[in-house]
Amino acid sequence: MERLPGFRDFYPEPIPHRDVWSADARQYVFDRWRATARRYGFREYDGPPLEPLELYTAKSGQEIVHQLYNFMDKGERAVALRPEMTPTLARMVAAHERNYKKPIKWFAIPQLFRYERQQKGRLREHFQFNADIVGEPDVAADAELIALLIDALRAFGLTAGDFVIRLSSRQAWQEFFSRKCHDHTQAYEFYQIIDKLDREEREQTEQKLAALGFSLEEVMKFIGGGEPTPELNAILANLAARGLREFVNVDYQVIRGLAYYTGTVFEAFDRKGEFRALAGGGRYDNLVKLISGDKVNLPALGFGMGDVVLLELLNARGLLPPFDGGLDAFCLIEDEGLRTESLRLIHALRSGGLAVDYSLTPAKPDKQFKRAQELKAARTVRLERSETGEVQARIKDLRTREERAVPPEEAAGWLRAPAKS
Amino acid sequence: MERLPGFRDFYPEPIPHRDVWSADARQYVFDRWRATARRYGFREYDGPPLEPLELYTAKSGQEIVHQLYNFMDKGERAVALRPEMTPTLARMVAAHERNYKKPIKWFAIPQLFRYERQQKGRLREHFQFNADIVGEPDVAADAELIALLIDALRAFGLTAGDFVIRLSSRQAWQEFFSRKCHDHTQAYEFYQIIDKLDREEREQTEQKLAALGFSLEEVMKFIGGGEPTPELNAILANLAARGLREFVNVDYQVIRGLAYYTGTVFEAFDRKGEFRALAGGGRYDNLVKLISGDKVNLPALGFGMGDVVLLELLNARGLLPPFDGGLDAFCLIEDEGLRTESLRLIHALRSGGLAVDYSLTPAKPDKQFKRAQELKAARTVRLERSETGEVQARIKDLRTREERAVPPEEAAGWLRAPAKS
Repeated sequence: MERLPGFRDFYPEPIPHRDVWSADARQYVFDRWRATARRYGFREYDGPPLEPLELYTAKSGQEIVHQLYNFMDKGERAVALRPEMTPTLARMVAAHERNYKKPIKWFAIPQLFRYERQQKGRLREHFQFNADIVGEPDVAADAELIALLIDALRAFGLTAGDFVIRLSSRQAWQEFFSRKCHDHTQAYEFYQIIDKLDREEREQTEQKLAALGFSLEEVMKFIGGGEPTPELNAILANLAARGLREFVNVDYQVIRGLAYYTGTVFEAFDRKGEFRALAGGGRYDNLVKLISGDKVNLPALGFGMGDVVLLELLNARGLLPPFDGGLDAFCLIEDEGLRTESLRLIHALRSGGLAVDYSLTPAKPDKQFKRAQELKAARTVRLERSETGEVQARIKDLRTREERAVPPEEAAGWLRAPAKS
Repeated sequence: MERLPGFRDFYPEPIPHRDVWSADARQYVFDRWRATARRYGFREYDGPPLEPLELYTAKSGQEIVHQLYNFMDKGERAVALRPEMTPTLARMVAAHERNYKKPIKWFAIPQLFRYERQQKGRLREHFQFNADIVGEPDVAADAELIALLIDALRAFGLTAGDFVIRLSSRQAWQEFFSRKCHDHTQAYEFYQIIDKLDREEREQTEQKLAALGFSLEEVMKFIGGGEPTPELNAILANLAARGLREFVNVDYQVIRGLAYYTGTVFEAFDRKGEFRALAGGGRYDNLVKLISGDKVNLPALGFGMGDVVLLELLNARGLLPPFDGGLDAFCLIEDEGLRTESLRLIHALRSGGLAVDYSLTPAKPDKQFKRAQELKAARTVRLERSETGEVQARIKDLRTREERAVPPEEAAGWLRAPAKS
């Protein structure tokens, strides 16, 4: 029996096949995302992986709707596996924002889903680090959020040589659009054309632009020569104060596909341009109002960073550390007469916070030792009877091969000491 | 717009309403589960939340099938949101077991789903700590797994006065069954009757038992007087060696509802009997073989512990710690002329691993200080110009109210020192 196409199995390292993913690398990524968000004072939240379909259809552009993993449940409800986190966040904030002082700084690490026509190797789920600031209209919030994004990437050892944040503005594009077209209902159609500049045929782009009264030439001129808006300049100055200016370029080609963005928009890319976007986000000052049915009106902004492209980049740059079980000790039971005492010792060590493994059943000493090495245990510990008949614990450092015999009750202390490197 | 019935929203503490859950408490539970599993040498894995329906229908008893959250996807595949983790584990082990030395000791913390007819307050999802040992037929593995279960509960401060593991054996029941009934195809039907002894009308139970040739009296006599099998005695002795004997009772009324168990079965309950089972598991020596289509034959056993009943119990016993954002410092910006320097300091502190927050926009000093207190920051830090014009960092401990002024580059060191209690 096989897993569904587009879904992933996560195995402990070393992973057994190219076709499966590392559970250890995933946890490493989650841990760093979580730690970085907490350093920035962000609090964790989560919502259901399944939401009412209308949470997405009512508010998002068609771009997202046809990708939904949706179905009817047994209670005849139209539901969807969440394709993005922002509508859930907006729903949750709208429900209980009065209980939280503004600005609200929240993060989540949801698994997200989509169902597109089958493409080879195209995934139908990924995990995404989401961080949002709600209730602060000032661009100081935009700078704070982008700083978090930069540091969340730097947390993996990525540098300004590895990635760049391309910063843009829906406001700048709106002004550009309004100069020639006064039908605001067509603005989103225009943004969609800009969003696809790189992906669509030049001729098709030109036709679509012409229908709205624009030439490709003037669009490209705006992208090439557009001056940063005052808001973007304020963000750049704020990031410069933090020493993060080198991570950001103003680039008006970025506009983002989703309909709900209203201000600053940005994407993170690897500098070499080998991979898809690492992250993307922006300001969506009207979404909470829309989702809450006009009950709550709060400005907001956020970004999402997926695990798949990030792991591809970290792999390519050799930035993933080696993973093993992190065993502090493997307990060798060579004298079966000491198994009961060994179990007692193992339990005492584990209760003291040490990671300890052992052979569940009797096995030859060399087989046990080999197992300790395979598991990359830092040390072995073995109970033995001294010449005077007392039980002592013999501890061996598997790197230096250094050995010492200590009373069993002192074993935890010795095993807790950092192993020599 | 509301979330779907039976699903949960997780908010940062303090939670705003009785109807939502604490994201902090959830993460606290996950962290302790994970840490305990690692101490026992278990490695983490995960599979997709969506699996082919046949992974469950083909192998499990009807008990699980009618509870499935299943549907047809857009590719006309019959799929189900996973109701339990064991079939996924069996599938993953069957696919790549050759790459792992036995016994395999793995754990996961999946979200699981079910769809029953609507009952007030009945959840349709929960998170479950799953731990399994694959490839070891000896009951030493059963003892190791039960020890992990006990320590995973003790990790929250629960004691032998709070919970008990009720230990039983499908083998013992099979022997009892075979004494009077030789039609093995009816054994699972018999186990289902035993599993529902507490929940079904006495008369109905008697009728069902009579149909298989048993009286309720002899069943109750077996439950009351059944001697531990040699296997159970070996498990008890093993746990006694670890000092865990007081956590376990042999109790043949436990038989477990799922079809695939073959040996030891057990459930964890609160001693007062106020809550549903905290955890349950057992040996399923034939499941990997079934799932792999006879390609791989490995004995296995495992347990699952849900987050919902555990959190209910921890709440009732007052064992959940208070949660806050864990802020090391709140940076007060009282002199806007020092905002740039303050941003630089904040970034340096965060880069040094400290959790720091501040007011994104100018605010009155007393409002900033109030915010620092609301966020339960350990300290405040504020840049100021000394009489000689130099910038210094003034650090205040929010508990002791102790203050000191230090050069900005030394602030991280002072903020990292444990706050006095």
